[in-house]
Amino acid sequence: MDNECIFCAIGAGKIPSFKIYEDDISLAYLDINPFSFGHTLVIPKAHSQGLVDTPDEMLKELILRVKKIASHIKATLPCDGFNILQNNGAAAGQTVNHIHFHIIPRLNGSNVSFTGQKGDMDSLKALAERLSMS
Amino acid sequence: MDNECIFCAIGAGKIPSFKIYEDDISLAYLDINPFSFGHTLVIPKAHSQGLVDTPDEMLKELILRVKKIASHIKATLPCDGFNILQNNGAAAGQTVNHIHFHIIPRLNGSNVSFTGQKGDMDSLKALAERLSMS
Repeated sequence: MDNECIFCAIGAGKIPSFKIYEDDISLAYLDINPFSFGHTLVIPKAHSQGLVDTPDEMLKELILRVKKIASHIKATLPCDGFNILQNNGAAAGQTVNHIHFHIIPRLNGSNVSFTGQKGDMDSLKALAERLSMS
Repeated sequence: MDNECIFCAIGAGKIPSFKIYEDDISLAYLDINPFSFGHTLVIPKAHSQGLVDTPDEMLKELILRVKKIASHIKATLPCDGFNILQNNGAAAGQTVNHIHFHIIPRLNGSNVSFTGQKGDMDSLKALAERLSMS
């Protein structure tokens, strides 16, 4: 754990999040600046910065979590498709240096600029309850 | 193999590509309508449509290929960061219904609209040779 890392703190439960999934090694929660309705982040609890320095075994486990959680979102929300986005480095728009996979639900005809708008906290809370997998 | 699928045909070598990596189960090649310099696609040779219907074992192998190839691109090209993008469904901008991971190299200060511009074939050929991992 990196004591300076906000996603490590979220993973450890020291900072609250709009959690929808958790297990021993990973956590998924709503992005508070969503690109679209239901925009979710999947992170490992262990710290690594990006794709290149994440251990292979962790990466394999993570991609299965992304599949499972994206399938759940697609089945639960109005959702015609979704993007998986994983940014590496400031040059690529990575704003928190703890690897995270974005799940970005999409509706037919929707445009997404891949930039976030500050979400309404009450709406996010209700959405997290709706999407909770626990 | 889906006989109607262009990425199955590329995977089987029936349609040429600007290949940079190949093994028994996967292929990586330059996107001919690149979002950025070095934009690469990683596909399984076996057909599946997207994240949800790709078998877990295949997905785990694929994400390791994405890591390996992205690491190679970052070490070989001028590349300050990169995006991994995987689109599911027409609503999310998926244009070929065979799962593919985009590796999109980025330079500091670069903007990427995540839409492609037709690439120059000679330049792509030279770039594929430069990036070849075989």
